[in-house]
Amino acid sequence: MEEILAKYRIESSLSLADAAEEICKEESVGTWTELKTLEPEIQKRLSANVIELDEESKTATIAYSIDEYSHEPGGIPQLLSFVAGNLFGLSLLKHVRLVDIELPSTIVKLYQGPKFGIEGVRNLIGVKKRPLIGTIIKPKIGLSPKEQAEVFYKAARGGIDFGKDDENLVNQAFCPLLERTRQIAEAIDKVKEETGRKVYYAINVTTRADRIVEVAEDALSNGATCLMVDMLCAGYAAIRALAEDGKINVPLHIHRAGHAAFTEDPHHGITMLVLAKLARLAGGDQLHTGTVVGKMKGTKEEVIQTNDFLKNEWFGLKNVFPVASGGVHPLLIPRIVGLLGRDIVIQAGGGVHGHPGGTEAGAKALKQALDAVLQTIPLEEYAEDHKELREAVEKWK
Amino acid sequence: MEEILAKYRIESSLSLADAAEEICKEESVGTWTELKTLEPEIQKRLSANVIELDEESKTATIAYSIDEYSHEPGGIPQLLSFVAGNLFGLSLLKHVRLVDIELPSTIVKLYQGPKFGIEGVRNLIGVKKRPLIGTIIKPKIGLSPKEQAEVFYKAARGGIDFGKDDENLVNQAFCPLLERTRQIAEAIDKVKEETGRKVYYAINVTTRADRIVEVAEDALSNGATCLMVDMLCAGYAAIRALAEDGKINVPLHIHRAGHAAFTEDPHHGITMLVLAKLARLAGGDQLHTGTVVGKMKGTKEEVIQTNDFLKNEWFGLKNVFPVASGGVHPLLIPRIVGLLGRDIVIQAGGGVHGHPGGTEAGAKALKQALDAVLQTIPLEEYAEDHKELREAVEKWK
Repeated sequence: MEEILAKYRIESSLSLADAAEEICKEESVGTWTELKTLEPEIQKRLSANVIELDEESKTATIAYSIDEYSHEPGGIPQLLSFVAGNLFGLSLLKHVRLVDIELPSTIVKLYQGPKFGIEGVRNLIGVKKRPLIGTIIKPKIGLSPKEQAEVFYKAARGGIDFGKDDENLVNQAFCPLLERTRQIAEAIDKVKEETGRKVYYAINVTTRADRIVEVAEDALSNGATCLMVDMLCAGYAAIRALAEDGKINVPLHIHRAGHAAFTEDPHHGITMLVLAKLARLAGGDQLHTGTVVGKMKGTKEEVIQTNDFLKNEWFGLKNVFPVASGGVHPLLIPRIVGLLGRDIVIQAGGGVHGHPGGTEAGAKALKQALDAVLQTIPLEEYAEDHKELREAVEKWK
Repeated sequence: MEEILAKYRIESSLSLADAAEEICKEESVGTWTELKTLEPEIQKRLSANVIELDEESKTATIAYSIDEYSHEPGGIPQLLSFVAGNLFGLSLLKHVRLVDIELPSTIVKLYQGPKFGIEGVRNLIGVKKRPLIGTIIKPKIGLSPKEQAEVFYKAARGGIDFGKDDENLVNQAFCPLLERTRQIAEAIDKVKEETGRKVYYAINVTTRADRIVEVAEDALSNGATCLMVDMLCAGYAAIRALAEDGKINVPLHIHRAGHAAFTEDPHHGITMLVLAKLARLAGGDQLHTGTVVGKMKGTKEEVIQTNDFLKNEWFGLKNVFPVASGGVHPLLIPRIVGLLGRDIVIQAGGGVHGHPGGTEAGAKALKQALDAVLQTIPLEEYAEDHKELREAVEKWK
């Protein structure tokens, strides 16, 4: 029998076995008291079962019958309703953390997953092996469409591959989404003409999931080359609606604002690894997973584990480009590449637009830092002949 | 100038003022370093500002310009992207809890809110002043549509006003949603014929938000009298899509599976009060908020504060019926009504179907407990003449 496995770390005054049993009851056929309406046959067929207990790590692995999930009748929302549902609130359990989920191929194959994956994104811009570098246009909000495109143009001229809206820029009056999309598209064309390089840009189409396809299709007809969705603000359905829409033929860049409300306590909540699995099912092509070294929390172990999942085989679904973003500047590039490898999109916002020489110089410095790493030359040495990198080293050392 | 206010409780090695300033920067125009692209005019117009600091409670209130939010271009997802976005993950802040949000009328009025509210729901079934009592059909999953309806019929005959699917029952093969809806509708008609009483039942239509209207409309044409949405699993858009659909003319019952992954730590995450505000904006008519005394966490203060918000005036939006659910049985009714008042839906699952006499006896016991409270008679005394309540007292005392 195929099963969905969920691994929980539990703190409770109950024994680990009893605590795990409480989760089984709450999340499958039982409740806090015995039921007159529960026939043994149902109990046997649909009950969740503890299949492994590890006292040392305080973890229990629970198997949910695939019959319960029954070939995706409610999709990711239903999956969440039992693997990550009421259990967090049970008074009997002090803390519970959903550490990981393992889905059988029957379930994974119900999802289309990413349309592009790492190779697809690389093919789009013709960059085969090295990390991609990108920038979040700053300030986060306030620029007009023309200014936004101008900042992006400078960054692209400076050498970045990718640009994106910040998460709180959507379709405000000061920067309407479609006009911004058109201006960015022009900047992309100009960069191509002038340098022969292809660059791409994620327009933030985050909005209610029931309307997002409409917004995305409008963005596409105005020249969008990539679409950004904030997955926890908008819900996984927002990603999925775009990924499954036949007309949407650009990569989906997935942001995760708000995740740390429930991913950062090692004793409670849900790991980023689980969110990454859901984002891949839903169809994200690029996903923010952390930098280890930047301004955001996220331990080395968890970032690496999450990125490994995204890059590896998963029942035939395309893989996902991990994105390292948050407090990145040129001096961090060697450590990020050292930790996270070459299949990574490295993004710097402040670390580009905060460069003393401005955006174009900042982008050059970022690219120079990457070039130094790829040639295994120490940054300080490479900076001797590279003015922009030297200025960055001065500023951020 | 109108503003959106967000109150945070912050723990950090920084001073409260500096920590709050980090949130302002991260969530509006700034970032971790100075930007060459940030003009003073943008800073002035769009920057978030700390407007109040309370060292004792470690709280800071931050005002976000309404220009930033700009009359709902991205709706609730965009609102979340700044009031509850990246800030939780900032390395500089140890813990942050979003305690409350205050939205100006200009924003609230962009939302339709609930179609029914407390009065609308009461009118539907003709119960004016007393608490409503309901049951979650148990076992949570595994009954066939016919069995599900039979259990509900017994509960309704026993005296409950309301029934609902459990959160992990959607449209599985063992209990297809439309067949279940039809069987439940027949049970409702039968109860009406036999007793003259109107009862209602929430069919769990939770699914991806981009498809939920379709599922809901099918349920309605098969006789659904109420629809359930699991708001965190499916996203607020799932509620909103239903609430704004002109054809959907039944109340929306909102479940909150998974909320405790980020609501239960008093130092981190988001309060249930904030989620309740979003659920009301989105259009929920009934919302689970806790029992104080049942199997789920949730302090007295927070449940009362949340329920008060739901029941009170909010710029003309209809109010919301708070739902007390989770580990409820007849003996808890006096305390629940004492704590939470008469405008409440009290639900018992195990506390009905776990009664020694079975579902109908369990429902009778629940109704008897409510009758006792309404007549201000102690339960033990009332139980003397009421067999089902007496059995419940025996079992759960």
